[in-house]
Amino acid sequence: MGPHPAVAAIRLAVRRVLHDILTELNTTAGVPAAAAADRVPERPPAPLVLVACSGGADSMALASALAFEAPRLGVRAGGVTVDHGLQNGSDLRAEEVVLRLRELGLDPVEATSVTVGRAGGPEAAARDARYAALDAAAARHGAAAVLLGHTRDDQAETVLLGLARGSGIRSLSGMAAVSGAGGRYRRPFLQVDRQTARKACMVQSLPVWDDPHNADPAYTRSRLRHEGLPALEKALGKGVVEALARTAQLSRDDADALDTWARQAEAGVRDATGVLECAKLYALPPAVRRRILRRAAIEAGAPAGALFARHVEEVDRLITGWRGQGAINLPGKVVARRQGGRLVIRQG
Amino acid sequence: MGPHPAVAAIRLAVRRVLHDILTELNTTAGVPAAAAADRVPERPPAPLVLVACSGGADSMALASALAFEAPRLGVRAGGVTVDHGLQNGSDLRAEEVVLRLRELGLDPVEATSVTVGRAGGPEAAARDARYAALDAAAARHGAAAVLLGHTRDDQAETVLLGLARGSGIRSLSGMAAVSGAGGRYRRPFLQVDRQTARKACMVQSLPVWDDPHNADPAYTRSRLRHEGLPALEKALGKGVVEALARTAQLSRDDADALDTWARQAEAGVRDATGVLECAKLYALPPAVRRRILRRAAIEAGAPAGALFARHVEEVDRLITGWRGQGAINLPGKVVARRQGGRLVIRQG
Repeated sequence: MGPHPAVAAIRLAVRRVLHDILTELNTTAGVPAAAAADRVPERPPAPLVLVACSGGADSMALASALAFEAPRLGVRAGGVTVDHGLQNGSDLRAEEVVLRLRELGLDPVEATSVTVGRAGGPEAAARDARYAALDAAAARHGAAAVLLGHTRDDQAETVLLGLARGSGIRSLSGMAAVSGAGGRYRRPFLQVDRQTARKACMVQSLPVWDDPHNADPAYTRSRLRHEGLPALEKALGKGVVEALARTAQLSRDDADALDTWARQAEAGVRDATGVLECAKLYALPPAVRRRILRRAAIEAGAPAGALFARHVEEVDRLITGWRGQGAINLPGKVVARRQGGRLVIRQG
Repeated sequence: MGPHPAVAAIRLAVRRVLHDILTELNTTAGVPAAAAADRVPERPPAPLVLVACSGGADSMALASALAFEAPRLGVRAGGVTVDHGLQNGSDLRAEEVVLRLRELGLDPVEATSVTVGRAGGPEAAARDARYAALDAAAARHGAAAVLLGHTRDDQAETVLLGLARGSGIRSLSGMAAVSGAGGRYRRPFLQVDRQTARKACMVQSLPVWDDPHNADPAYTRSRLRHEGLPALEKALGKGVVEALARTAQLSRDDADALDTWARQAEAGVRDATGVLECAKLYALPPAVRRRILRRAAIEAGAPAGALFARHVEEVDRLITGWRGQGAINLPGKVVARRQGGRLVIRQG
């Protein structure tokens, strides 16, 4: 008799990602080995894959699947838990997570504590601190990859958060399956729902910890999870989470393709001195033109996070709705103005 | 003292659209006039613009703004109300709407009754019947355009309905400001919120009719309006409707650009006999390749409405994940198979 379907599902998801990681390592490793053909060939050490684990159901399920699959593929499996220090006793919980991960057979396992700042709000500050700690742990242990437990439900929530920004399809594209420097971070569960992860923990008798923040209505994501998404499902039907996750993937591919187009088109719309030419910009599709304008504003010093769609639209009207209007002020003291058929975007 | 801000807002929205219509008419009319320079120039009759009016606040506000702006721009203003025959007394209501539109000074004004079928569900069937009747009315009266009262709130709902399909950014692009054959339909209120339209009716003492369907939870759109969207606003903040409407516009531009790219790339990925070549498809960005595959499937006879993203993804794996898999069955008895480096998509 095989494993419970939920356990089979999480293991399959992890196995696929480990396969990808090994394939990429072999491809990369082939080059230096051939270049150093005169040295005695050594058996390379088994690559290490870490799981980032909060002790919650999603990442405990991920840790259990990694513990099961890694040895079968010649991979070493380790774990890291980050103590954000935001609640009393968070250090004790971190120690408990370390214990659980060791029980699963992971090695090395460590708890690492961080100091959460305030920049960008509580959720963003915690996230920044967490990724910095995970980056450091990965470097310290020479890990080939760090697995993250984000599920399809997390992805759906991320898409809705992006939708609320109203800043276009890049913000609808959610979390990437592969991200970070050198593709360090992997999210094997983006197609796995939260219920499956939870079920897999239950049938494997893995104790899980419910982060009280996840139910705290002070957090936007928590309100979305417990009120927004359920109401949306009630209105639109049960497939909403899946539809949002698919939207993320399709939007990501579309945004990538349009970014490529904009990069390629950009050289063709600049004059010999590198200044943008209005007539050539006008001839481009609006979606491509606005991406070029956005890139130009960021290159001139506008902070990407403060540059909204409405800013870019206003600059665009210097091209498409020219009636002699004055300079447009953009974030970061960047100014866009039309001068004799040229569009000049620069700081100050 | 100027008009109430809500009235000013709806009038401005209509004025802009009338300007667009007149500009386009002059551009089009200029060509034959020049070609027939030897004939005595005649003053062309004032163009007619119709408003489609249900008697609800949105379209009554639209009718009032059209009645005010049209004479100032040398445009004749008329109105049509469609009796869907779905409720007892709907004919009496239609007569009342005709009366109200005449009181506003519109001429011609007519009620037209339709028989709503069943195809595609109650909402789609009513919509199909309505547009057929409006098309006929526009042709009968030689109207240059038909104005529709869809607001920014309707647009937000349409984006969420598209999101629930999970079929990509085209379905996120909502309703177009200009649509129909020759750009017949115009939606001046896509940037105006429902509250403004309602307020404009109130301050102009225009009686409005509330369609009981709009509050009937049997309708998806109604559930979305009264439960889904308010819950989403509670979780994400007040700007959700605006963000969704902006997403619609950005998605539409992006989808248009990618469709253009796919059309242009298509010729380059076919061999001399017009069959798709896998190696050339492989080299394209996924977003462009999948659009070409989708177009090819529809050209081969797959019904667009039944062809989902997952179908296209499966065909795509014949290109990107080739491991000798068999033919893929698509809706409309269309079959896609890989044969010696070629992708053959055809019926039967």
